Amino acid sequence: MSGQREPIRDVAHLAHVELLTPKPEESLVFFRDLLGMDEVSRDGQSVFLRAWGDQQLYSLKLTESAQPGLGHAALRAYSAEALDRRAADLTNGGFGTGWSEGDYGHGRTFHFRGPDGHPMEIFYEAERYAAPSHLKPALKNQPQKTAAHGASVTALDHINLFSSNVDSESAFLQERLGFRLSEVAVTDEGKQTTAWLHVTNKSYDLAVSLDKTGAKGRFHHLAYKVDSPEMILRAADIFIDNGIFIEAAPAKHVAGQTLFVYVYEPGGNRIEVCAGGFLILSPDWETIVWTQEERKRGLAWTNPLPATFHTYGTPDIK
Amino acid sequence: MSGQREPIRDVAHLAHVELLTPKPEESLVFFRDLLGMDEVSRDGQSVFLRAWGDQQLYSLKLTESAQPGLGHAALRAYSAEALDRRAADLTNGGFGTGWSEGDYGHGRTFHFRGPDGHPMEIFYEAERYAAPSHLKPALKNQPQKTAAHGASVTALDHINLFSSNVDSESAFLQERLGFRLSEVAVTDEGKQTTAWLHVTNKSYDLAVSLDKTGAKGRFHHLAYKVDSPEMILRAADIFIDNGIFIEAAPAKHVAGQTLFVYVYEPGGNRIEVCAGGFLILSPDWETIVWTQEERKRGLAWTNPLPATFHTYGTPDIK
Amino acid sequence: MSGQREPIRDVAHLAHVELLTPKPEESLVFFRDLLGMDEVSRDGQSVFLRAWGDQQLYSLKLTESAQPGLGHAALRAYSAEALDRRAADLTNGGFGTGWSEGDYGHGRTFHFRGPDGHPMEIFYEAERYAAPSHLKPALKNQPQKTAAHGASVTALDHINLFSSNVDSESAFLQERLGFRLSEVAVTDEGKQTTAWLHVTNKSYDLAVSLDKTGAKGRFHHLAYKVDSPEMILRAADIFIDNGIFIEAAPAKHVAGQTLFVYVYEPGGNRIEVCAGGFLILSPDWETIVWTQEERKRGLAWTNPLPATFHTYGTPDIK
Amino acid sequence: MSGQREPIRDVAHLAHVELLTPKPEESLVFFRDLLGMDEVSRDGQSVFLRAWGDQQLYSLKLTESAQPGLGHAALRAYSAEALDRRAADLTNGGFGTGWSEGDYGHGRTFHFRGPDGHPMEIFYEAERYAAPSHLKPALKNQPQKTAAHGASVTALDHINLFSSNVDSESAFLQERLGFRLSEVAVTDEGKQTTAWLHVTNKSYDLAVSLDKTGAKGRFHHLAYKVDSPEMILRAADIFIDNGIFIEAAPAKHVAGQTLFVYVYEPGGNRIEVCAGGFLILSPDWETIVWTQEERKRGLAWTNPLPATFHTYGTPDIK
Repeated sequence: MSGQREPIRDVAHLAHVELLTPKPEESLVFFRDLLGMDEVSRDGQSVFLRAWGDQQLYSLKLTESAQPGLGHAALRAYSAEALDRRAADLTNGGFGTGWSEGDYGHGRTFHFRGPDGHPMEIFYEAERYAAPSHLKPALKNQPQKTAAHGASVTALDHINLFSSNVDSESAFLQERLGFRLSEVAVTDEGKQTTAWLHVTNKSYDLAVSLDKTGAKGRFHHLAYKVDSPEMILRAADIFIDNGIFIEAAPAKHVAGQTLFVYVYEPGGNRIEVCAGGFLILSPDWETIVWTQEERKRGLAWTNPLPATFHTYGTPDIK
Repeated sequence: MSGQREPIRDVAHLAHVELLTPKPEESLVFFRDLLGMDEVSRDGQSVFLRAWGDQQLYSLKLTESAQPGLGHAALRAYSAEALDRRAADLTNGGFGTGWSEGDYGHGRTFHFRGPDGHPMEIFYEAERYAAPSHLKPALKNQPQKTAAHGASVTALDHINLFSSNVDSESAFLQERLGFRLSEVAVTDEGKQTTAWLHVTNKSYDLAVSLDKTGAKGRFHHLAYKVDSPEMILRAADIFIDNGIFIEAAPAKHVAGQTLFVYVYEPGGNRIEVCAGGFLILSPDWETIVWTQEERKRGLAWTNPLPATFHTYGTPDIK
Repeated sequence: MSGQREPIRDVAHLAHVELLTPKPEESLVFFRDLLGMDEVSRDGQSVFLRAWGDQQLYSLKLTESAQPGLGHAALRAYSAEALDRRAADLTNGGFGTGWSEGDYGHGRTFHFRGPDGHPMEIFYEAERYAAPSHLKPALKNQPQKTAAHGASVTALDHINLFSSNVDSESAFLQERLGFRLSEVAVTDEGKQTTAWLHVTNKSYDLAVSLDKTGAKGRFHHLAYKVDSPEMILRAADIFIDNGIFIEAAPAKHVAGQTLFVYVYEPGGNRIEVCAGGFLILSPDWETIVWTQEERKRGLAWTNPLPATFHTYGTPDIK
Repeated sequence: MSGQREPIRDVAHLAHVELLTPKPEESLVFFRDLLGMDEVSRDGQSVFLRAWGDQQLYSLKLTESAQPGLGHAALRAYSAEALDRRAADLTNGGFGTGWSEGDYGHGRTFHFRGPDGHPMEIFYEAERYAAPSHLKPALKNQPQKTAAHGASVTALDHINLFSSNVDSESAFLQERLGFRLSEVAVTDEGKQTTAWLHVTNKSYDLAVSLDKTGAKGRFHHLAYKVDSPEMILRAADIFIDNGIFIEAAPAKHVAGQTLFVYVYEPGGNRIEVCAGGFLILSPDWETIVWTQEERKRGLAWTNPLPATFHTYGTPDIK
């Protein structure tokens, strides 16, 4: 963080993610009834959804498509000036794919692709959410009523990009967008296999995992957070009662120390419900480097992640 | 427990409660959408409801009436023989009001009234709940899917009878029904002001509180349990978001050490959502006696219960 | 429960367990500092320990021995008469090994061995725990201060006996001691592989698991409960920080639906920390029978138990 | 946030607080044994303590003094340049009281006083904590072992300054230090009565409350966070068992929606244990303004805070 150059601090947070699904109705039921999100709008083949605590208008755009996967990931800039600075820098780096007028709920938007081709965008101007009367909360510092259905996810937490080259992705995110590398797993040769990066005080807002199949630009997972470890366990109960495939039962990650449960939503995309973890407040946080040897312990409580975690992504390439 | 006489062990548990409400539609919304219960049947002005973990067919019969209050409280006997023994004993004591063929979901039933006139009944034969297909749980040792809406109450926990004479009520319940007195609050003169009694290993299944207005036979509250202290806090969040009056915010009782939140359902009846507390396993548990002096500390964490807790009951007599 | 014969209801609860350990000092540190128990007495090579919520004087007798394993498991009878009835019945069945004057904290005791040879005992007269001044709790309905160290286990929950013949063990416990079979796992041939049995309203107080090695009379595990699912996760954090081997990371059982974490204490005995689960209140609970096919789903959230769960017991026979 | 001027983003977080206590031994027992903190160093009449998750070397300097109160509050700058910018700006505003070489664990430090005279300081260079071997955690992204004693507080969360003039204090913190006003309570005349301000994504790092006694420069409270709502309840259990005065039992704040329990440590200072609350990620968060009318609802669950919350501070002026 401290160095010759002032750090880039232009990205405020992960704003929303567009997910593609070949089973739009069933995916909608998953996000709305099982995660407990609310529909805010529809447009063509897309439904816009929000979690009760999302500070943005929506955090998920669910779009019908032949294959599951990532439509795009959107970042919010700190200011109009910050947006312009990032657009210029991304253009200079050859990552930009141009400006648009924006989409539902946000203004002019700069589009770009990371090294592996993941479609991303950044904008600043955004419409605020105003809860309809039946969702007005008791406390006005909360965007809407606490969801009292399904897993009651609070808010979008992070996204994980499956990449053929984590080193490139990680460098790109740090250099062009100001992400800081909180933790990283490396091979004995020093090649990154998972990179956890943050722009907020959360220990990560975006992660990049090595796609062991060698495929490029796939989507690994999207995570919604809940308010306590116990709600992860409850989410898992809801998933089994409703026939959702659990890829990884509730446990605790080493990196970030978040509690999790991983499932595949009916469209095939991997979804995480997460909780806990720590905030990074120190301005001179030193990246935690996990060696292959250290990773052999498994998850925090020493149980393993399933092998599919390193090979399954969307679109599925089998 | 150990004495000359073998203890009476004929009552298995509190089976269900009939609540009267002048606002049947709003009360139904409260129990179904805010507590998260399911409707199992209707009959005339009554709706039968169950919590997802109730082992009986239903735990609540909600009946339209001019005034709120207790319709009746039903106990389940351990066996047909136990039922007959209790009926004979209640009849001998002059408490019996006769047999009936039963009601929805249960067979022949003996009706009686306690010293203050609270209507009660006891039966053994009961119809088992069979979840409809959309509520079939993943695990068959659970009656139905975990409720994923509202406060997700698990099961009926206990009932509290408001009484003009706690000593009489407490003696009646012990002598005629085999309840054991786990804890009791007494005045300096030794008069009981609250009695907590149990037939299961829970520290209480039924409580009796002194009605300081002197009225007879009123209803104090009904309690549904949730699976963790945290779910009490969440229930309170749901109540404020939906305009439910909270009489006593989440805190911890001294007796039983249960966590609670008390509200008035729209029909006016006081409802508790509770969690935690201890089991009584010792066969020679000695009744815990709380003096007036000791009760001055307030609740477990030293905050007070509101004054209405000792005067408000249903029907309301103001 | 309902049948021609009145059920036996003479056993109140599991009173304590004697564990043998070849590493007495390290085992003591485990129970005292990591589980958060307190030492109440010492006698020769034994240390007596209690959890803060145990209603009995102690729940664990930890005894130095060449091999780890079960010293004995002790049950408490409901009354002196109940004790005599059980002693007579056990003697008739050929299981009795005689009376003794008792041990630290309890009076005359009848000793017996189950079909596989596990040493057990039953008594009624027991000394009550009186907390020393530094452990006096704020609320006198609690035996001592809430443990504020280690995993803060509340109380002894259950024991699991490893057996070469679960059918025999299960029949013995039901017929001679009045345990009821809440759930059972069976092979396609109808042979029991795990039996869960209860005498309290807890869904099990004692379990018997098939020892796939064919060894007789070994010990499977002892379980202490904590007050919430979250405290299981916290226990696992404490275990990894202190070098305790986690055999099965926190997850949820199908039978009883308890949350758990399994570890090996330094002496080699398997210890569970558990939470949650349901109470059985229905007098006509029908035993839940799990087929081999149904058991293939794994644990509640579909993750597996490690294979050692079916082969490792103490003493270790490798 | 969005305006003509680029916002000041020079303060990284609240680094530590020096508390004065007339009962140093009892205060030390409170923080070490009841909150679960660890001593890292001593110097003269001061003891330096840290919570297990504090990223800084220590978060509390406990210093013997005739009267309780605030020794000083320390902020950490983002960089050496940021420190110099703030020092210059504070000097320009007439708030500076000069540079020092620093104190235990941190380098050169700029000292200043807010409008009401509260002693504060800011520094950048800081020594990192290295856990001694008996406190080495299993996971190296955690500073030390999870505390398994007392309330197990995770980290310093925020400080609340009692002020005779909240408007001045709030303006000072925003203009000179770059705090942003997340929420504010105002009188009908528009005078601020409580201001909640943040520099991190937490909804507040520092609050200012109106001292209704009119006294200047007193200390309101210091807050340590725990990892879940449930741990607040557990902290309260520990406090009652150990004779600590609970001023406000566990409940939920409206502002920030944090769960809390407030106690007076033996030296007289008000201490909060808090959990939960939301993060502010939106770069254009609009300050939530609470009117007197809105504040009449009480806390989130409608129960009141005790009157002493608005008059008791340290040093006590009675």
